[in-house]
Amino acid sequence: LPEVGKGDSVGRLLTERFQFEDGDVLVVAQKIISKSEGRVVSLAEVTPGAEAVELASRSEKDSRLVQLILDESRSVLRVRPGLIIVEDRRGWVCANAGIDRSNVLQRDCNSLEDEWVCLLPADPDESARRLREDIMAETGKQVGVIINDSHGRAWRDGTVGVAIGAAGITVKSDRRGAHDRHGYVLQHTIIGTADELAAAGSLLMGQAAEGVPVVVIRGVSATGEGTAAELQRPKELDLFR
Amino acid sequence: LPEVGKGDSVGRLLTERFQFEDGDVLVVAQKIISKSEGRVVSLAEVTPGAEAVELASRSEKDSRLVQLILDESRSVLRVRPGLIIVEDRRGWVCANAGIDRSNVLQRDCNSLEDEWVCLLPADPDESARRLREDIMAETGKQVGVIINDSHGRAWRDGTVGVAIGAAGITVKSDRRGAHDRHGYVLQHTIIGTADELAAAGSLLMGQAAEGVPVVVIRGVSATGEGTAAELQRPKELDLFR
Repeated sequence: LPEVGKGDSVGRLLTERFQFEDGDVLVVAQKIISKSEGRVVSLAEVTPGAEAVELASRSEKDSRLVQLILDESRSVLRVRPGLIIVEDRRGWVCANAGIDRSNVLQRDCNSLEDEWVCLLPADPDESARRLREDIMAETGKQVGVIINDSHGRAWRDGTVGVAIGAAGITVKSDRRGAHDRHGYVLQHTIIGTADELAAAGSLLMGQAAEGVPVVVIRGVSATGEGTAAELQRPKELDLFR
Repeated sequence: LPEVGKGDSVGRLLTERFQFEDGDVLVVAQKIISKSEGRVVSLAEVTPGAEAVELASRSEKDSRLVQLILDESRSVLRVRPGLIIVEDRRGWVCANAGIDRSNVLQRDCNSLEDEWVCLLPADPDESARRLREDIMAETGKQVGVIINDSHGRAWRDGTVGVAIGAAGITVKSDRRGAHDRHGYVLQHTIIGTADELAAAGSLLMGQAAEGVPVVVIRGVSATGEGTAAELQRPKELDLFR
């Protein structure tokens, strides 16, 4: 793909380059959706408030970036040098409200000397729904769309791709009540299918240098109607906040 | 694969059925490794102690199962009805110390009326190393091996496949110091590559009814020397325990 900028139709960029089939699952990097939606901000235009200045000191981060993190969050969960973990406006528990400084310089930026950052899409499930509809309008094909991002985990090192937006996808596969091969009734198995698809896509995307922002998964049976928001654990069931 | 029982060589079962190539990554379900290692226990032979009885009451679980969970754990982190989250003997934070009741009836079991459960391999990294060596001995091919299991997450609903054992694999891809497409130096990106591979494998394994215990990932560049234990976050860096 070329560099994506504000106003670009990601759906058209994709359909011009790829023959979709019914049932294809697109895993799309959050960043190109954000850029197409103009969710790019110059730090030079941000004025940090008192809370951001204090939190910047504790986290050893740029106070302007911290202001954006606060603007994009419902609550701050943990802070240590180099790390701010929040519940973001969309309900995701993640570092820095998903705001990323890499791979942001682009044709919308006026000057290479400014520092630009990329915010998450305002409503990634809605972004996924629109992209799915755009592809259907262009091609007549019914595809599933996952918008993925890389998240850290509570007890495991390393980031993995997760779904922050989804449309036309089986987000969770509820296996409760199904039988195993011996007739035993499975009791507690709800699989985070969209997150497994997101991780598989992330594996192929690599990061940054490779520049692969979209992966198409074909041959997997994952058509459905879920949204990524369904992967958010209700706070009252959360044992680790 | 046929039903796997104690003493079976998983390596031979696989090499008899599949032509491996150098660089293949095998994602192998924990359960067939556990069964081959005889890590199957009849609840009828377990006598719960006082701690297990108390914890069984709080978690509404079978006290014999809870005794096994305690035996397999370093510490209990959270309890609620239907759920016991522990740090297991291997260092994994997971539900029920990874002990599973499904898909366990097998030729090693004497009676269908007993209730059998399956424990995790005692040392999954070592199990992976042995399987990798067995395949090399049989075929001369250098493969990577991941033993996966399905884990819940702190803030996300649904389980995903993760790596609990690994050999011959790039477990974490450290992108710190790499440059993005615009020359920006990536600062905090360590990718949990083995977990993304495990999730991709898990996606195809489905669960139980499908009975696909091994997935081969070909064409991905993931050869390395890591162990899954490297994915355990050091407790002093853990913000959520």
